[in-house]
Amino acid sequence: MCGIIGVFGTDDSLKNTILGLHALQHRGQEGIGVAWTDGQKIYCEKRLGYVSEFAKTFKLTQSPISVGHLRYSTTGKSEKNNLQPIVVNGIDLKIAICHNGNLTNFFSLRKSLEEEGAVFTSEMDTEVIAHLIMKAKGDIISRLKFALSKVKGAFSLIIMTPSALIAVRDSLGFRPLCLGRLKNAYVVASETCALDIIGAEFIREIEQGEILLISKEGIKSEMLEKPKIKRECIFELIYFARPDSHIFSRDVWLVRKELGKMLAIEQPADADIVIPVPDSGLFAAIGYSEQSGIPFSYGLVRSHYIGRTFIEPSSQERASDVRIKLNPIKSVIKGKRIVLIDDSIVRGTTSRKIVKMLKEAGAKEIHMRISSPPIKFPCYYGIDTPSKGELIASSHSVEQIKNFIGCDSLGYLSVEGMLKVVGDFYENGGFCTACFTGNYPIPPEDAEFISQLRLFRDY
Amino acid sequence: MCGIIGVFGTDDSLKNTILGLHALQHRGQEGIGVAWTDGQKIYCEKRLGYVSEFAKTFKLTQSPISVGHLRYSTTGKSEKNNLQPIVVNGIDLKIAICHNGNLTNFFSLRKSLEEEGAVFTSEMDTEVIAHLIMKAKGDIISRLKFALSKVKGAFSLIIMTPSALIAVRDSLGFRPLCLGRLKNAYVVASETCALDIIGAEFIREIEQGEILLISKEGIKSEMLEKPKIKRECIFELIYFARPDSHIFSRDVWLVRKELGKMLAIEQPADADIVIPVPDSGLFAAIGYSEQSGIPFSYGLVRSHYIGRTFIEPSSQERASDVRIKLNPIKSVIKGKRIVLIDDSIVRGTTSRKIVKMLKEAGAKEIHMRISSPPIKFPCYYGIDTPSKGELIASSHSVEQIKNFIGCDSLGYLSVEGMLKVVGDFYENGGFCTACFTGNYPIPPEDAEFISQLRLFRDY
Amino acid sequence: MCGIIGVFGTDDSLKNTILGLHALQHRGQEGIGVAWTDGQKIYCEKRLGYVSEFAKTFKLTQSPISVGHLRYSTTGKSEKNNLQPIVVNGIDLKIAICHNGNLTNFFSLRKSLEEEGAVFTSEMDTEVIAHLIMKAKGDIISRLKFALSKVKGAFSLIIMTPSALIAVRDSLGFRPLCLGRLKNAYVVASETCALDIIGAEFIREIEQGEILLISKEGIKSEMLEKPKIKRECIFELIYFARPDSHIFSRDVWLVRKELGKMLAIEQPADADIVIPVPDSGLFAAIGYSEQSGIPFSYGLVRSHYIGRTFIEPSSQERASDVRIKLNPIKSVIKGKRIVLIDDSIVRGTTSRKIVKMLKEAGAKEIHMRISSPPIKFPCYYGIDTPSKGELIASSHSVEQIKNFIGCDSLGYLSVEGMLKVVGDFYENGGFCTACFTGNYPIPPEDAEFISQLRLFRDY
Amino acid sequence: MCGIIGVFGTDDSLKNTILGLHALQHRGQEGIGVAWTDGQKIYCEKRLGYVSEFAKTFKLTQSPISVGHLRYSTTGKSEKNNLQPIVVNGIDLKIAICHNGNLTNFFSLRKSLEEEGAVFTSEMDTEVIAHLIMKAKGDIISRLKFALSKVKGAFSLIIMTPSALIAVRDSLGFRPLCLGRLKNAYVVASETCALDIIGAEFIREIEQGEILLISKEGIKSEMLEKPKIKRECIFELIYFARPDSHIFSRDVWLVRKELGKMLAIEQPADADIVIPVPDSGLFAAIGYSEQSGIPFSYGLVRSHYIGRTFIEPSSQERASDVRIKLNPIKSVIKGKRIVLIDDSIVRGTTSRKIVKMLKEAGAKEIHMRISSPPIKFPCYYGIDTPSKGELIASSHSVEQIKNFIGCDSLGYLSVEGMLKVVGDFYENGGFCTACFTGNYPIPPEDAEFISQLRLFRDY
Repeated sequence: MCGIIGVFGTDDSLKNTILGLHALQHRGQEGIGVAWTDGQKIYCEKRLGYVSEFAKTFKLTQSPISVGHLRYSTTGKSEKNNLQPIVVNGIDLKIAICHNGNLTNFFSLRKSLEEEGAVFTSEMDTEVIAHLIMKAKGDIISRLKFALSKVKGAFSLIIMTPSALIAVRDSLGFRPLCLGRLKNAYVVASETCALDIIGAEFIREIEQGEILLISKEGIKSEMLEKPKIKRECIFELIYFARPDSHIFSRDVWLVRKELGKMLAIEQPADADIVIPVPDSGLFAAIGYSEQSGIPFSYGLVRSHYIGRTFIEPSSQERASDVRIKLNPIKSVIKGKRIVLIDDSIVRGTTSRKIVKMLKEAGAKEIHMRISSPPIKFPCYYGIDTPSKGELIASSHSVEQIKNFIGCDSLGYLSVEGMLKVVGDFYENGGFCTACFTGNYPIPPEDAEFISQLRLFRDY
Repeated sequence: MCGIIGVFGTDDSLKNTILGLHALQHRGQEGIGVAWTDGQKIYCEKRLGYVSEFAKTFKLTQSPISVGHLRYSTTGKSEKNNLQPIVVNGIDLKIAICHNGNLTNFFSLRKSLEEEGAVFTSEMDTEVIAHLIMKAKGDIISRLKFALSKVKGAFSLIIMTPSALIAVRDSLGFRPLCLGRLKNAYVVASETCALDIIGAEFIREIEQGEILLISKEGIKSEMLEKPKIKRECIFELIYFARPDSHIFSRDVWLVRKELGKMLAIEQPADADIVIPVPDSGLFAAIGYSEQSGIPFSYGLVRSHYIGRTFIEPSSQERASDVRIKLNPIKSVIKGKRIVLIDDSIVRGTTSRKIVKMLKEAGAKEIHMRISSPPIKFPCYYGIDTPSKGELIASSHSVEQIKNFIGCDSLGYLSVEGMLKVVGDFYENGGFCTACFTGNYPIPPEDAEFISQLRLFRDY
Repeated sequence: MCGIIGVFGTDDSLKNTILGLHALQHRGQEGIGVAWTDGQKIYCEKRLGYVSEFAKTFKLTQSPISVGHLRYSTTGKSEKNNLQPIVVNGIDLKIAICHNGNLTNFFSLRKSLEEEGAVFTSEMDTEVIAHLIMKAKGDIISRLKFALSKVKGAFSLIIMTPSALIAVRDSLGFRPLCLGRLKNAYVVASETCALDIIGAEFIREIEQGEILLISKEGIKSEMLEKPKIKRECIFELIYFARPDSHIFSRDVWLVRKELGKMLAIEQPADADIVIPVPDSGLFAAIGYSEQSGIPFSYGLVRSHYIGRTFIEPSSQERASDVRIKLNPIKSVIKGKRIVLIDDSIVRGTTSRKIVKMLKEAGAKEIHMRISSPPIKFPCYYGIDTPSKGELIASSHSVEQIKNFIGCDSLGYLSVEGMLKVVGDFYENGGFCTACFTGNYPIPPEDAEFISQLRLFRDY
Repeated sequence: MCGIIGVFGTDDSLKNTILGLHALQHRGQEGIGVAWTDGQKIYCEKRLGYVSEFAKTFKLTQSPISVGHLRYSTTGKSEKNNLQPIVVNGIDLKIAICHNGNLTNFFSLRKSLEEEGAVFTSEMDTEVIAHLIMKAKGDIISRLKFALSKVKGAFSLIIMTPSALIAVRDSLGFRPLCLGRLKNAYVVASETCALDIIGAEFIREIEQGEILLISKEGIKSEMLEKPKIKRECIFELIYFARPDSHIFSRDVWLVRKELGKMLAIEQPADADIVIPVPDSGLFAAIGYSEQSGIPFSYGLVRSHYIGRTFIEPSSQERASDVRIKLNPIKSVIKGKRIVLIDDSIVRGTTSRKIVKMLKEAGAKEIHMRISSPPIKFPCYYGIDTPSKGELIASSHSVEQIKNFIGCDSLGYLSVEGMLKVVGDFYENGGFCTACFTGNYPIPPEDAEFISQLRLFRDY
């Protein structure tokens, strides 16, 4: 749950990096960091808070290359010390590293590096990559290959040196990463919406296992290793990416609308209107309405003045957020049998509050429909789902969840239906569905992995 | 263009006031002010910025009565000195005043008060009301009647003393004001969405010309004068109020949807999809789609991390805002003939940028449809439209506007169609349509009024 | 206890005003305000905190005239709303007013103005002056004469209009005010140290009862009324003014040194060293040492990183301040019989802590000597002494104070000795000694005056 | 030029650490850092700015051990990234390191560590120590001995682990470090003034080459190596330490007074008064006056509202600082032949401005006397003197400096006189006098040392 971007080949690279981060804000709201260069050294500024706040007071400078990062903590407490990019101004090599993903062998790597005397100054798994790169010999590509041969897990990386921009995607391709062009400059970013805001043209996605080096000599592509299978994160399509982005060769909004159609087929409802939980359920609701013929309506108004529920830190804040974020329109709701569409249920507490609000506003029946299967397993690859104990579907049946939420009926999309929509309906297919199925493409290193992860996450 | 609220009868009045202001944030984003009491004196805190920022650091205290105000400058520069409530801790009378509207004889009143030695410390027309109240004799109702018999123009007022809460609406009823109940407490607010967020129940709207006094003795209602006609601001329904509010006896969202239907009848288009300019055109687009049978789609994604275009101060900021606020979804747009729905066109510059973005995203044709008539005249009653010279429709024909904006066709709703929708199709009807028709219910006092208004607005 | 300054006749007036306020910082540390003009209107910026903080972020602009004010609250709570200058941009008259002093009939004046409908927005007595000026007719001089004929008490005023700078001193001349020249520009300020920092040359002091008008036509002097006696505040010389200033025709440092000599004559001590409480007792200690022949030494080191004890708001803060502000040098102190010199004792709590520290550091005997008489009466003219109940000398004998403080002997300078030093040893002489003698030059209006003063001060 | 402190054995350790840092503020004004522990991990907070600012908003927590650091940059740019303590929460060892001094082989150590893959995240030489400690094996003492056997230069260190506090002084003893007791708790700090503010009792200084380990088992002392000679920084006594501190077995104030007496013997002057440059020349001036019989006076008043000239970063700021910091008292100065005493001259620019001010104030003659020899050589051991090119005495004769400064005569104390005062008049004596004599106790490693130092200092 991070957003990354890099720009090469224009003096405005830093400005464009910040604009791009603004478009990627939904991927991380805890803090922002940018790095730039004067051709000699790499400079860096990191701050907690939103991009728009950052941009108000940050002093832009010209730089031929820049990278940027938005953070939501997957490992490590939310604090300034854990923001990226990680910058190392070594005597021989100067780099800034931006990472989206999560390393599954971080703990053991850090331990063995420390035993050799390494000094870690943050709790970020990305710092392990920095150490391995500095330890390696040779040119930057050789160093990267060495370092990335040691780590396991999910990583989309954007790295800059004073003269080059490098983009890497792990061999399973968990996280998205795309390439664009803006006149003579190149842009790499988590999602295409970051290209759009800059006015850059989309070229292609970075391949799974690809290392892309952009320098004055042009673009050079190498492979980390021969990838056998692909495991792109299906939750990016369902929830995380922006609807106007194009990732994993698919239009996000269209996938969501089609999921809504499939949901209408699998989980029909006898109702008067279809309303989305804004904005997460919007496209699925449009699809559900189209397929079912039940009129689409807007029954919940969202305040423009606050951020996204799911990725806010403390559960107390979440509680009041629902109330101050969404307001039901009584005259839409009153006396109606409602199909309420959302993309997923995590803890169930937000859905419960929404259903309660709608009932108080006079809804006659509420048929909740979810355009993805129940989330039963935590993600080890960078989506900050809570631990298994907090995922309501890992310990409750659909019937029990329905009762907890208080709706009149509850229907989830099936795993099969979901995979049919994304066109990937076979065992060795291209998507990671671990959060729904428990089929982890990279199994936890050992029995302690999860608890270690939590250990680092919690202090 | 202000939002006001007052709460009486609960120790949490201040907390509820701030929550209510959060729901009214769309009515003013420059600054917030709240007042409260310890039963003796009235205290006040005012700050530039958003309610959510204010709430982060403001220290709540208990108070039986509180009032709050959100400001966008209609007269006077955007500065802290011009925030409300205006608080006067006189030896005999202590009051806090919150005003939504605009006084048309402010300048001459201030001048004559100054000639008598009055000291004005702000540029707000509301300060004139404070002076007149302090000048008057008798109880607060007598004082208010005296003061309000002197002023002309639009005013919805919420006033507190250490023991009472008072709500007033001018005799023509330009601005909305409603009454709600929360257990034993009362709430008055600009719109019902502020009642909803608190959990208060809507009772009724304050009548035109009504003075409502809420005290320990209960509610007492008096009239300023016998109102003859009603002139509620139709632009509140079209653009300004929140869609989930109920004002002027109407559901805002429903009026907008019906305006969209009427627009589809008056201004049909041969197209593949209907898309709204989010969020202002949303309900009209749903209505247009329903009426025309052209599928509704979502082709512009709005960033959640910035506020509302129309009421941001400087035109430079507006320019870049469009780009960083809206992103077209290419795969929705590409090759399509589009009906683009918005609620109004002010300067035309934003529409122009949106059309340009959509064309660049591959739109085949763009048929822009506006769910209100052309805005040709400035508002003197509290909506901060720019001066006549900047209103594109005051000097350009629809054909010329179409060319400026760059769309393939442009159609506005007619005044008649609009009035038919709001059910008010006769000369002495209840709505002020001055911005569309130039029929000002209260004519400017003299030839200098407008320039005086601008004079105060511009330094 | 305020510092005021005005500059006329240079585009750098605002910069010089701020520099001058920095030199006057000892006169008020709660907040700063400056006003300037574009020739049409008067602009103003006020902030709580120090001048050095203010200067960091305040954006300088060019202005031909500027005024500035430093505040320590004499009436009214410490809050931003009570900072000066008071600016009124009336239609006919635009002025900014800076006031040092205290009006003794403020309460009754405000009351009668309010009865006529006046609106007060602060708790400052200065606002009464603003109202009276706006009420008056004629040119600014006539208006001032009218306004100042109504007020009683102490006032040194610096007032600006968009075209003139005015300096006024009340007829008894309580507070200092001086005139200087900087090339073609004029400066008026509370003390000459503000002239020095700008590089301005001292011309003369404003006379008691004088109104000085500086405009493009040059300097014009008028008198408020024929002054009969002079009552300059002797406490300015003893404690409040900066030692490098020249006020009331005297060098402050020299008066203090001479007070120390007189103290040595009146209150000799058998001791090894003389040490000052830094910095307040410095010059008196030098004088005491010279006169007595007991060697001067430095036994208490003062931290450079905090402000002045006496004028910090809360008593809790004062407590810890003593400890973190002064450190005894053990090797100077140990085994010594010490004459400890300070300029005054207010509550006695600070002296007590200092004596305790010195005893703990090994002092054999401590003979405390105070270079002024016991302060027994509160000041009504602008020095923020605490109420009578808190002034230790108003209810305790010298012997009792000695016991409270814990020193081995305690000696105050006599009123006669003090007056002899300042050369003013007769009944109708030029100094106000009310805080020592209770001889108030302007008696409190009526029995309620003091309590009213406190009333305003305390909420 | 840093201040360090550590407290062990009281839950209030963090509060006492911050109080102590306040007393040490003169040793570094760029930034502050503190570290504390919950017995498991070490936590840290670092901020640019003053201790008093830090204390306003820092949330105190209870911790049995704490350390603190004040920074003025000797290597590395003034930025938050270069503040200390350096905290490493390694899996096996968790430490926080505070360093006062400067390592002369930092550059080559960092280079060889980087060649082994070490990642440096700051430009501080102290980070080398952290790396070496983490690389070493065994208990903390063994690790420290290993690490400190590699580094050369000046280091007084205070280190904490979650269960111990360690104090180390290098074998030559360049920088001071003392031990105190507060009931059952121990305090180690740069100077005794930090003990005083806490109320701790001075026990002894840490020996040169001593490692002191304070834990629940009590105090344990070991030696790094057998020290042969001592080289305590004489400039600490002359200028840097606070006058109320006791360091290097001497009372700082007394050394300064005696230096003033010796100066009067070596460099007599025919004059009317002796005045110090406050506060640096205060005690020397008292000594000069006592010895010469010329009366001591106070002719320059220092503003309380700004910090110390010498250690402010940019030369532009220094320029205006002189003017806004010191004001001559004309009536003391005018027509007088003045002996002006200061402790040292670095660039000469400040002295020049002071002499100019005094001349403008009417001084008849100014005889400048400096209570130390000319500073001709940069310091490599932690005093941030400018490079040789900027030290006026490295390229100018006393006569030339006199002419530059504009005084009538100029006299420095001789090296012999200075050493006589500190009782250390022989070749192998105990003080480092390199800045005066060029006799560097630890010669720069190689020809590039100085330029490397500057390289790191300048970017």
